[in-house]
Amino acid sequence: MSVTFARGFTASGVTAGFKASGLPDLGLLLGELGTTAAGLFTTNRVEAAPVALARHHLASGSARAVLVNSGQANAATGERGSEDAFVATAGAAAVLGVRVTDVVPCSTGVIGEPINMDALIAALPTAVAALDDGGGEAFAHAILTTDTVDKQATRVAGDHRLGGCAKGVGMIAPNLATMLAFITTDAAVAPGDLQRLADEQLTPRFNAFTVDGCTSTNDTVLLLASGAAGGEPVTPDSRTWGALAGALGDLADDLVAQLIADGEGVTHVLVVDVRGAADEGDARAIARTVADSPLVKTAVFGGDPNPGRVLQAAGAAGVAIDPARIDVAFGDVTVASGGVIPPAYFEPASTLAEGARTQMKDPEILLTVRVGDGPANARIFGCDLSYDYVRINGEYTT
Amino acid sequence: MSVTFARGFTASGVTAGFKASGLPDLGLLLGELGTTAAGLFTTNRVEAAPVALARHHLASGSARAVLVNSGQANAATGERGSEDAFVATAGAAAVLGVRVTDVVPCSTGVIGEPINMDALIAALPTAVAALDDGGGEAFAHAILTTDTVDKQATRVAGDHRLGGCAKGVGMIAPNLATMLAFITTDAAVAPGDLQRLADEQLTPRFNAFTVDGCTSTNDTVLLLASGAAGGEPVTPDSRTWGALAGALGDLADDLVAQLIADGEGVTHVLVVDVRGAADEGDARAIARTVADSPLVKTAVFGGDPNPGRVLQAAGAAGVAIDPARIDVAFGDVTVASGGVIPPAYFEPASTLAEGARTQMKDPEILLTVRVGDGPANARIFGCDLSYDYVRINGEYTT
Repeated sequence: MSVTFARGFTASGVTAGFKASGLPDLGLLLGELGTTAAGLFTTNRVEAAPVALARHHLASGSARAVLVNSGQANAATGERGSEDAFVATAGAAAVLGVRVTDVVPCSTGVIGEPINMDALIAALPTAVAALDDGGGEAFAHAILTTDTVDKQATRVAGDHRLGGCAKGVGMIAPNLATMLAFITTDAAVAPGDLQRLADEQLTPRFNAFTVDGCTSTNDTVLLLASGAAGGEPVTPDSRTWGALAGALGDLADDLVAQLIADGEGVTHVLVVDVRGAADEGDARAIARTVADSPLVKTAVFGGDPNPGRVLQAAGAAGVAIDPARIDVAFGDVTVASGGVIPPAYFEPASTLAEGARTQMKDPEILLTVRVGDGPANARIFGCDLSYDYVRINGEYTT
Repeated sequence: MSVTFARGFTASGVTAGFKASGLPDLGLLLGELGTTAAGLFTTNRVEAAPVALARHHLASGSARAVLVNSGQANAATGERGSEDAFVATAGAAAVLGVRVTDVVPCSTGVIGEPINMDALIAALPTAVAALDDGGGEAFAHAILTTDTVDKQATRVAGDHRLGGCAKGVGMIAPNLATMLAFITTDAAVAPGDLQRLADEQLTPRFNAFTVDGCTSTNDTVLLLASGAAGGEPVTPDSRTWGALAGALGDLADDLVAQLIADGEGVTHVLVVDVRGAADEGDARAIARTVADSPLVKTAVFGGDPNPGRVLQAAGAAGVAIDPARIDVAFGDVTVASGGVIPPAYFEPASTLAEGARTQMKDPEILLTVRVGDGPANARIFGCDLSYDYVRINGEYTT
C-alpha cells in the first residue's frame, strides 16, 4: 500500500523507457488540495538538478505532487540538467492541472547520463491517468534501481494513517545517500509543524545508517500531509502529536531496516552502539568510523569477531578517547575490556572466541563499543562488505 | 641490501617462532656508537605498547638499535603488553651490551594476541650473533606479515649512502598504518636535524597513501644516521644537506610505491591529484575521500572510468567546493568539465568513454580532480578494491 495507505493520496508507476530492463521507471504521487510537504535533502556539494529544484518548490511548504524518474540521476548534467528537471516538473504540473511549485521532482540512477525527455513527456499523461488510491505499490516499484526488493511500510496512529516507501542500495551513508523515501499521512499538519516532524523523527533515523559511507548526489526524503482524515490540524500542542510523531518514527525505522537489509551485497546487518562518549558528535564519529571500516566490514562478512579491528577503528575516529577505557562486545560476549583483549581469546578452542563467533552467525549483529563514562550514546546501522558488493559495483555500467 | 647498504649498520633476521609459518619473524638492526635516530608514529588513539615505549626511547635522539617482532602487534594487550615490550627491549639491550633506551621496539601482526615472550628471549642471542653488515635483506624479510614481497630500496647522495626497507599491506592510510619502515644513512646528522629530515621528507610521503583508509595501531617510521661515512655532520647549512634530503625523499617514494603495489588484493594503483583547492587541507580531504571511496575503488577494479562516482566522492568530502567548477580526468582524458559529464559519454560506442576505458588498463591510473582556481594541490596514492581484498580480510584469523 505504501504512500496511498494514507487517505487523500493517489499514486501511479508506469514505464517511460528510462531503464533498459523495461521495468516501471516513472512514479507519480498526488495529494489532494491543501496537502502540505516537508523534506530532507543530500548534504553532498555535488547536488543533482532535481534536488535544487525540489528545495525551491518545498520552500512554500504547500507542494502536493512528487514526480520520480529512475534510471538517470540527472546529476552532473549542468544547465541541460536544470532545464530538464524544470521541463519535467512543469510538464507534470500542466497535465495534473496544478502549479509548477506544487510538484517536487526526484531522480535516481546513473550520474551524468541525460534523461530521455521525449520519453518522459510522452509518459506523463499515462502516469496521470494511472493515478489511483491503490497505486502506492506501483509507485514503490517505479522508484527502484538496483534494489532487489521494494520497501514499503504503513502505520496507524489513532485516527491517522501513515504510509511510506523507499529505495536505495549503494551510495548510502549518514547524511543521506542514493536514497529516496516518501512518507504520507492523512493528518492535517501545517508546513512548519510538518518540517519539525521531519527534522525530529526522520533526520536522526535516515542519517544513522551506512552501506558504504558514500553520500549520494540525489538523496531526498519527503513527508506529505493531506489532512484527508478530517479533524483539527495536528500541532505540537495537540494530544495526538505524540502518537503521530511516534508512528512516523516507527515507520521510518521500518523503512531504514528494509533499506539496510537490501544494501548491495549485504549478508549481515551490523548495528554499532557507541556508549559513554563525551558528546553525541564524538559518539557518532566513532560509530561511523567503526561501521564504515573495510576491515570491520570484511571481518563481519567472514564471520570473524575481530576485536582488534574494532579497537583500531575506534582509535582512528579522530576523537580523544582513552584507549584503556574501551570495552567491546559482539552481542552479549565481551571481547575487550579496558582496552585489553583477554589472552584466552587467542588460545586454541577458546570458549570466549567460540562464543563470539556464534554471535556472528545472526543476520543482525550488535557490536557495542563503550568508550568511557560520558553521557552520550549513538547507534549506527551498517552492514558487511562482501564479494557481491565488489561484483555489483565493479560491473555497474557508467 | 636495505638498511645495511649504509655503512655503520649491521642487521639480522631470525625465526623465533611467532609465525605459524615458521618464516623469519624477529629482526634486529644495530648502528655503531654515536648513531642518531628520529621517528614518526601512528596517530591512532589505540596505540600499541611498543609504540609508546619507542616514542619514549627516541626522545633522547640517540637510539641505535631496532628490535622488530612480526606475528603479534602487541596492541590491546594492556599492562602485560607494556611489560612485554619493556622486557623484550631490555633483553635485547642486555645481549647487545647497550642501554635500554638505545633500543627502539616495533611490533606488527595480530592485535590483542600476546607475544610468546619465552620464544623471544630465547631467540635474542641468535639474533645478536647473526648481526652482519650484509644482513639488511634478512632483516627486510623478518619484518613482513601478509606482505607477498619484501620492500627494499637504496640511494647514494655524494659520499653518503641511504638504505631502507618497509612492510605493510592492509590498515594502510594517510596518518600511517600497519606499516613499518626503517631507513638508515651513514651521514652524520645531529638528532634535531635528523628529525627535521624525517618531518620534511618522510611525513608528507608516508601520509600520502591509502590502501583501505584504516590507520593502524602500530605504524612506525624510523630514520637512523650512523655517521660511518666520515666527514662533518650534515646540517641544514651544509652544501650536502639538499642532496641528502633529496635522496631520502626519493628513497621514501620508492618504498611507498612498493607498499602500495603490494596492498591487499591490489590490481591497480590509483593516483588522485586534486588541484586548485583553496588550501592544502581542503585538497587533501578531497583527495582522501576520492581515494577511499568504495564506489571509486570498485570502479577502478572493474576498469570502469566512472566520472559520476568521482564527482559524488568529491562533493561528499565536507569541503565547500563549487560543483560547477569541477573537472575530472582519467589519465589525459577529461570526463567531466565544469561539473558536467558530456552526454556523448553515454552514447553507444562513445569514443570519449572508450578513450577513458583505455586509461583504466594501466597498472597505475592517474585521476585528476580540479576543483577551482585555488592555489593548493594534493596527491594521494590509493588502489582498487578487489575480490581478493575481501577474501584476505574476510579470512584473516583473529
